[in-house]
Amino acid sequence: MADGELAGQDTKRQRGGRSQRRESRIHGGQAAQRPYIVRNIPTYDILSDESLARIEATAERILAEIGIELREDAEAMRLYREAGAEVSEISADVWRLKFEPGMLREILKTAPAEFTQHARNPANSVRIGGRNVVFAPSYGSPFVMDLDRGRRYGTIEDFQNFVKLSQSSPWLHHSGGTVCEPTDVPVNKRHLDMVYAHIRYSDRAFLGSITAAERAADSVEMCRILFGADFVDRNCVVMGNFNTTSPLVLDGVTTAGIRTYAAANQGSIHLPFLLGGAVAPLTTAGMVAQGLAESMASCALTQLVRPGAPAVLAAFFSSMSLRSGSPTFGTPEPAIGSLVMGQLARRLNLPLRCAGNFSTSKLPDGQAMQQSMMSMMSAVQGGANYVLHSAGFLDGLLSMSYEKHVMDTDMCGALHAYLDGMSVDDDALAFEALAELGPGQHLFSTQHTLRHYETAYWDSALDDNQPWETWDEQGGIDSARRANARWKTLLAQYQAPPLDEALDEALGDFIARRKTAMPDMWY
Amino acid sequence: MADGELAGQDTKRQRGGRSQRRESRIHGGQAAQRPYIVRNIPTYDILSDESLARIEATAERILAEIGIELREDAEAMRLYREAGAEVSEISADVWRLKFEPGMLREILKTAPAEFTQHARNPANSVRIGGRNVVFAPSYGSPFVMDLDRGRRYGTIEDFQNFVKLSQSSPWLHHSGGTVCEPTDVPVNKRHLDMVYAHIRYSDRAFLGSITAAERAADSVEMCRILFGADFVDRNCVVMGNFNTTSPLVLDGVTTAGIRTYAAANQGSIHLPFLLGGAVAPLTTAGMVAQGLAESMASCALTQLVRPGAPAVLAAFFSSMSLRSGSPTFGTPEPAIGSLVMGQLARRLNLPLRCAGNFSTSKLPDGQAMQQSMMSMMSAVQGGANYVLHSAGFLDGLLSMSYEKHVMDTDMCGALHAYLDGMSVDDDALAFEALAELGPGQHLFSTQHTLRHYETAYWDSALDDNQPWETWDEQGGIDSARRANARWKTLLAQYQAPPLDEALDEALGDFIARRKTAMPDMWY
Repeated sequence: MADGELAGQDTKRQRGGRSQRRESRIHGGQAAQRPYIVRNIPTYDILSDESLARIEATAERILAEIGIELREDAEAMRLYREAGAEVSEISADVWRLKFEPGMLREILKTAPAEFTQHARNPANSVRIGGRNVVFAPSYGSPFVMDLDRGRRYGTIEDFQNFVKLSQSSPWLHHSGGTVCEPTDVPVNKRHLDMVYAHIRYSDRAFLGSITAAERAADSVEMCRILFGADFVDRNCVVMGNFNTTSPLVLDGVTTAGIRTYAAANQGSIHLPFLLGGAVAPLTTAGMVAQGLAESMASCALTQLVRPGAPAVLAAFFSSMSLRSGSPTFGTPEPAIGSLVMGQLARRLNLPLRCAGNFSTSKLPDGQAMQQSMMSMMSAVQGGANYVLHSAGFLDGLLSMSYEKHVMDTDMCGALHAYLDGMSVDDDALAFEALAELGPGQHLFSTQHTLRHYETAYWDSALDDNQPWETWDEQGGIDSARRANARWKTLLAQYQAPPLDEALDEALGDFIARRKTAMPDMWY
Repeated sequence: MADGELAGQDTKRQRGGRSQRRESRIHGGQAAQRPYIVRNIPTYDILSDESLARIEATAERILAEIGIELREDAEAMRLYREAGAEVSEISADVWRLKFEPGMLREILKTAPAEFTQHARNPANSVRIGGRNVVFAPSYGSPFVMDLDRGRRYGTIEDFQNFVKLSQSSPWLHHSGGTVCEPTDVPVNKRHLDMVYAHIRYSDRAFLGSITAAERAADSVEMCRILFGADFVDRNCVVMGNFNTTSPLVLDGVTTAGIRTYAAANQGSIHLPFLLGGAVAPLTTAGMVAQGLAESMASCALTQLVRPGAPAVLAAFFSSMSLRSGSPTFGTPEPAIGSLVMGQLARRLNLPLRCAGNFSTSKLPDGQAMQQSMMSMMSAVQGGANYVLHSAGFLDGLLSMSYEKHVMDTDMCGALHAYLDGMSVDDDALAFEALAELGPGQHLFSTQHTLRHYETAYWDSALDDNQPWETWDEQGGIDSARRANARWKTLLAQYQAPPLDEALDEALGDFIARRKTAMPDMWY
């Protein structure tokens, strides 16, 4: 392995945007901003091939002997049956699907191991799969919180703010999807405002709606306006993030959404959200086997609709407080499970979404960052390719935090440097630097130090690294308070990336037309 | 590899002490208290053999061509020269030592790859080296801090408090050494009170004094009183933690201390404390090569004094804020360096001390725990065997924090579960649990869940995992405030382990005799 040599030159290029270049300079060259990370350290493989094979065999046995329940999507049922699944009818629109061992693995061979999701700014397009790592903000919280106003329901203004904060960070690569629920917009019209916010306030790739097939279709349609219908048919420009209904159920709303994205040749993520002891076994091996089974069954549908459509294997593992029965996040067992899920995804040759900056804490405090770090390390070490929930996650995903968003993105910056690994060449080995002055002499003034001084180390924009006295004189504040000041500064300094006026108008027309075509719905 | 089967039965046994057993039950069986951890997951090896060989070759070249400066210890100079070092005199008591490639590696072959440090409670003796991991509290801070009183110089009362807090935690394995500087005790007498505090308030293994040869000798002498002279001659019961004077200098006070421990067949740790750009190259590969060279040279002295004496390879890596020139801790480059140091130690077949819960933060906040976690993960994943600074480290090692001590020890508990890895057997794969109720049914009431409920997950004693409403009703406090309450409770509940009265008296007599034999010195 050629350590230090694998970070391709094209991934090191600087992106456009003056403020982003400035930020990039501040943070030094080693962790320079880039559209996504190409990992330069190996994955952390903790299980033997023998144990991995046992987990895979259990997943196949779950699919063959217990099967998956499919609800209210006769078209999906028909596709699975034609592909060879054994279908038994439970009621008029509920079926049990059983897959003989190896069948889904065979179907999944047409899914790409790696693909590009195009951004409207081509410099921001991301590669998903392989050695690539893409960070996206957290997804799906009904509440937002900050230190000034506490916890409250999210609004479309919060949603826009989080899109802007993510766009401001050089250490995220993707704008995410439902960065918070905009609860002040009717449920059946939210997706239009959310997709528009991603297009308008970010020039990165993003996720579309999945809550109904027609909302998925609207998401794709807005992308056709933005990119052109022909481009969209040939390229992935949007993805949907779909949850299985664990244990072992595929809901018809979900499968119809999956079919919508796949038919349009767009990407989809297939996520079992597994809380051990509730919707999965308490033991991690069993939870991982179930996650693999569910995600494979869901991913396979894409290939039955349109072979070659991008599909992302996924798993979200969570543990449980044994005293209260509450779900817990950022704990060791799910971290171990995520590392193993990475090994399984590579054996299946599919891109993986797994883990993120998880925490159960209600504040951006020590607990929050300790739990986040344990969880996030499992994502980056385990080889996850698309890391949703990379910024803002608090309160067991119930809340999106302004402060934690900037604390997490800062950590994502550190992880750029981490994933760059260690260069081992003559310059890095620095024999001459030591020899220059010899024993007992500080290296401050060596040529080597002067040459590397600006780029050697990741330099946080948020951490306090000053002497205690300076920190104390400046008010002695903690990192959450610094983050509070920083997100306000970032929002104040935010500048929207340019968007062609005709396109903006066309998007506006589409949204207005769709909104007037439907009465407001609030559930 | 037989995943899940390597945690030897003897390492899972419960230790004595009613309060410890209670704590252990609360935390569930998977992360049961044990005298030390036997890792059940592989190490995270990030560099290729080829790159490791280049680092080793650079270390050998540093030793052969630049060499090590030895100051004011003619006996050490004589030992190195007799072993084959090329010695050139720089002044009357300063020498440059050069070692031809391979020479130190050959000398180090007599050092044990793994050894036992005995505790006065035999159930608490630790194995250092191999797959074993031992956590010890932080070491060497002049200041202590807590949320009530802020930062202040440490006293012997603080020292005793930290020994008691460490003893109270089931997730530390070793009492450490200078848990804070007891600045209210004369410099030349501190070591007596420190060693006594470890013996009296803990029944775990500990570190002795290293600040002068006679203080090292006193430390060993107190152990002879405690364990018997004959036992001490045959077994390691105390260790000294020695710093090289980087770059590339061995100070005579240090080498005399090393000789004292080795002559008594006691253990020693050989630590280059490397701040990149100041006392080592800014580039991580160079820093690691220098660290390896310095630690090997220092370790080798033990084998020249007494072949077979335990010696621990070590390195402390720190980066630098490129804006302020201040040292930074818990950053990505040192974490990567520590993982590589683990690989190098295994190739050298020596036990390793590396990394810990490092942070530059001045408070036990999000920054503190994020940085700590990144650093601590490198220790446990990199295969460090003895992890000093596992609890309490803040303020770039200048301060020992009461709150962070309990936050860190809680994290050490989580790391027990992490290092246990994943069991992959039929029971853990849980096919029957899923089959029992089938798709769409919660697993709360399955036999599998009931059987594993109490032991499946690590359960923090400190983290808040409650619903937001409950947390809010209870005052909505952050983890630092919870830690503040917890250390007070732990100190209030602390009970000293029994110590034979005659031994206690003999130690008191020794200390009194030594103290009256010297005038107080305050520098």
